[in-house]
Order: sequence, then structure tokens, then C-alpha cells
Amino acid sequence: MKTWLDCYPCFLRQALSAARRTGASEKKQRQILLLTMQELQHIPEGATPPEMAWQVHRIVREQTQTGDPFHGAKQQATDEALRLYPHLKQLVKTAKDPLEMAVRIAIAGNIIDLGAADSYDLQSNLDRALAQDFAINNLLALKHEIESVSSILYLADNAGETVFDRVLIETLKKTVTYVVKAGPIINDATREDAVAAGLEPVADIIDNGSQAPGTLFSQCSADFRQLFEQAELIIAKGQGHYESLSDVPGPIFFLLKAKCGVIARNLDIAEGDIVVKQANAGSR
Amino acid sequence: MKTWLDCYPCFLRQALSAARRTGASEKKQRQILLLTMQELQHIPEGATPPEMAWQVHRIVREQTQTGDPFHGAKQQATDEALRLYPHLKQLVKTAKDPLEMAVRIAIAGNIIDLGAADSYDLQSNLDRALAQDFAINNLLALKHEIESVSSILYLADNAGETVFDRVLIETLKKTVTYVVKAGPIINDATREDAVAAGLEPVADIIDNGSQAPGTLFSQCSADFRQLFEQAELIIAKGQGHYESLSDVPGPIFFLLKAKCGVIARNLDIAEGDIVVKQANAGSR
Repeated sequence: MKTWLDCYPCFLRQALSAARRTGASEKKQRQILLLTMQELQHIPEGATPPEMAWQVHRIVREQTQTGDPFHGAKQQATDEALRLYPHLKQLVKTAKDPLEMAVRIAIAGNIIDLGAADSYDLQSNLDRALAQDFAINNLLALKHEIESVSSILYLADNAGETVFDRVLIETLKKTVTYVVKAGPIINDATREDAVAAGLEPVADIIDNGSQAPGTLFSQCSADFRQLFEQAELIIAKGQGHYESLSDVPGPIFFLLKAKCGVIARNLDIAEGDIVVKQANAGSR
Repeated sequence: MKTWLDCYPCFLRQALSAARRTGASEKKQRQILLLTMQELQHIPEGATPPEMAWQVHRIVREQTQTGDPFHGAKQQATDEALRLYPHLKQLVKTAKDPLEMAVRIAIAGNIIDLGAADSYDLQSNLDRALAQDFAINNLLALKHEIESVSSILYLADNAGETVFDRVLIETLKKTVTYVVKAGPIINDATREDAVAAGLEPVADIIDNGSQAPGTLFSQCSADFRQLFEQAELIIAKGQGHYESLSDVPGPIFFLLKAKCGVIARNLDIAEGDIVVKQANAGSR
């Protein structure tokens, strides 16, 4: 069983950060910290970071009576990414290997995460992601799978990153179902965010029925679970999906940037590394 | 009243880090996290970081049955600092303003803190502290006070930093009482650490009767409190002393490096800045 002990202090930090985004008073912020610590004490041993995040951010929403503390940040991220979109398309168009370029771009967009850190530098991260080596490189296998399937289930991560996903999806030239969250959690993409990123014309947007990061099956809709089980190929973006799906059998490729020491150690790579990782083979 | 909400996640991180230093199992580490969260829930609103640290690190010591999780780290820090000592003395000897140089050196040593972060780079921090401007600069007032007093009460911070303090004390040419902790807490200096740093020939080493960082009067010995009340001039090293003494009247000068955002915001300076700050005037 994996343990995620370093996530405890991180989620306490996240609770405080999210509370402040809502403009909560210091008194309220402290109350949220106390409730978060109470909640974290009762989370079962071995709970994954997405399970913790689900509880912690629920507390913040309830206590601040704010349905979506990250609403403004998500809109900003999408706007910033859309301004980059023509440049990203040009990068793919002029690349020697357009698919690899589009995969790199999709991973670069994974920096837009307001859970792992409170801020990010999109442009410098993009420059780096286009140049750096993959720390885990199953790109060839991914390309092979993409060629052999007719449809792809694409598990989205964050708002704004959605625009980078759009660039990859437009390059895939396959039937894509783009899976977002059913309600706001951190800055994870919802339908609204996917639509704002211009994904509607290029993918079938659905939600997974859940308001947790990653994919927690116990909370997902039967429709989503069926799609997952029948998928020919699943592209899963970001740490949350790796944390919640790394032990789940299926034709999954994880595309992510390691944004904290916990995931880096887990994958035996360095913080800041980028990854295309095929899930361990296993019967479904 | 000041609040220190950002310290909650930080102390959870510290508890985990200290537990790991003792070689505690993951199960024990988790137990320490849970107990720490329980303790932090019951710490009074407005408790200062040293008050929190006192409780948190007590839990780690008790749970791991390790009297001093930082014992090896403290010895290492002292050894590393002693290797630098001849160079530091040379810096003072050749400086245009030897006292300012010695003050800078004493502040540079304040980077040796295993509470605020898990590691530090002594040499690059020293280079920086010798060159950077003081973000708060009451050095002239400090010089004036040093000239006018016959004795100084010097409140020590961390082991290893003790060697840097020794350089300043040797430059002061005054009767100095060097105050350490009565028992191990984080990497704060105890008598053993002060002696190892070579302070015995140049200062009267006493402890304050307490095993908390900074100076928590309620836990200090009557002897120390009397010395504090009668002191002509008090030099207080590090964040812990500022956090616990900033509202206490007295002829105090705080010498510190801002090692986290909390103290930086509190002092309205940037992280990494160095400070010589005279305590606000107030009747004693």
C-alpha cells in the first residue's frame, strides 16, 4: 500500500490557500484549518491524495459558502491559454513530429495546477516542456495505440490545461470523449471550462459524475464507469489521475508533469520531470 | 493579535521531517501526524510559532522515544561551521568595519535552521549575507548601544550558528552571557552545542530553563527572567526570538534572516532578507 504522508501538510496549506481565495476572514480561515485537521485525522490509512482533496476542498466550500473558490482563477487560466493557442498550433504545424509536439504541449499545460502550488509560470514551463527529455517515455507505445484505435477516452485535469488538451485532441484526429468533473474541485475542469477552451467542436464532453480530483470510481456515474471499462485507449492527464488510477487495470497512458516531491518519488523521477507512462499491463 | 495560520501546515511538515530523522516507521510517522493535528487543534488562537513548535516536537520526541532527533544534524552543523571559523575570523580582521562584518556573519549563521526548512546551503548564504543590504537596518543604533553598555545578554538560536555567534561575541569585546535552551528542541543550541562551538572561553553560557524555541517566559527559569529584566542590552538571534519577544519591552535588537514567508510578511520584507531590528521602545 502506498502512503502519502507528505500530502497531509500540503492539504492543510491547500485548505488555507483556497479559503483565502474566497476572501474568508482570518477567524474563518483558522476554523477551516481546524476542521481540515479533524477531517484528515479520520481519513483512512492509504487514502489517495484525490480522496483527501475531495474532503478538504468540500470543507472549504461549505465553510465559506462558496461553490467554486477557483472560479476566477479558472477563467483567467483559460483566457491566458487561449491567447497562447495560435502559437501552440503553429508549433505543432511546424514540428518534425507533430504528434510528439502535441503531446509535449498537452503535458506543458499540466503546470496549470492550483493544488500542488499556488501559482505557476506558464510560458517558461512551456519552453521547458518542449525541450526537456521525458523522464518516463512510453511515447512510441502511445503512438502505436493511437494508430490502432478508433476512439479515445481523454480524462481532463485542469481548466486552462483544457486548451493545451485541445491542441493534442485536434492532432489526434480520432473520436475523443473528453471527461471533466461534475462539479468544481480545486481548479479541475468542469463542462463550463471545457466549453470555454473551445473543446465542444472537437470532442464529446462528458462529466464523470464526481466532484473529486482524479478518478474515484466509487463516486463516478455508472455511465462513466461503463465508458471507462469499454475504452480502447485512455489518456489520463495529471497527477490526480495517476494517484487514483495507477493500480487500475486498463489501456491507460498517463501524461503528466511531476509537480511535487511526492509524485516524483513515487515515479522515481525528479520534480519538474515530464512523463508519458503506459499503465502496467493487467487483465481488466 | 497576530495570527500564524501558515505555520499549521509548516508544523505538520516539521513533525513528519523530525519523525523521519529518528528512523520512525511509516506507521509511526502517520501516528505522529495524527497526534500533531490533534494537538494543533487545541492550541489557543494567537499561539506563537515557538509555542506550537514546543508542542509539536515534544510529540515527536515522545512518540519516537528519541530525546534529540536533531543530535547528529547539530553536530554536523557545528563541525561545518568550525571549518569555516578561520575564514570568518579573517573576514572580520580585514573588514573596513569589523563590527558590521561580524554582525553580518552572525546573521548569515542564522540560515542553519532545520525548522523553517529541511536543509540549507551555508556557503552561498554566507556570500549573500555579506553582500546584501539590510532590509531593516538599525545597525547604527546597535553600535551605539554596544559602545554604551558593559555587558550583553545574547539569546542564541541554532547549533552551528553558535560558531558564527562566537565570531560576533569575540568582536564585541564585552562581557557576554550566552543563553541556550535547557533541552533539545529542533536544532536549537543547548549547552553542549555552545561548548562544542568554542563559546566557553568567550562567554558565560547559561540556559533559559526552557525546552521551547525562542523565549517563552512562562517556561523560563526565574534566574533567566531576572537576567533578562536587568539586561543593559539584549541581542536576540533568529525568527523564534522575534516571534516570541517582538511585543516584549526591553533593550532588544533582533538579528535574523527571514527564512519563510510568514516572518517576511510580518516584518514587511522579502524572504531571504537580513535584519537588524531594534525592538519598539516601551517601558519595561
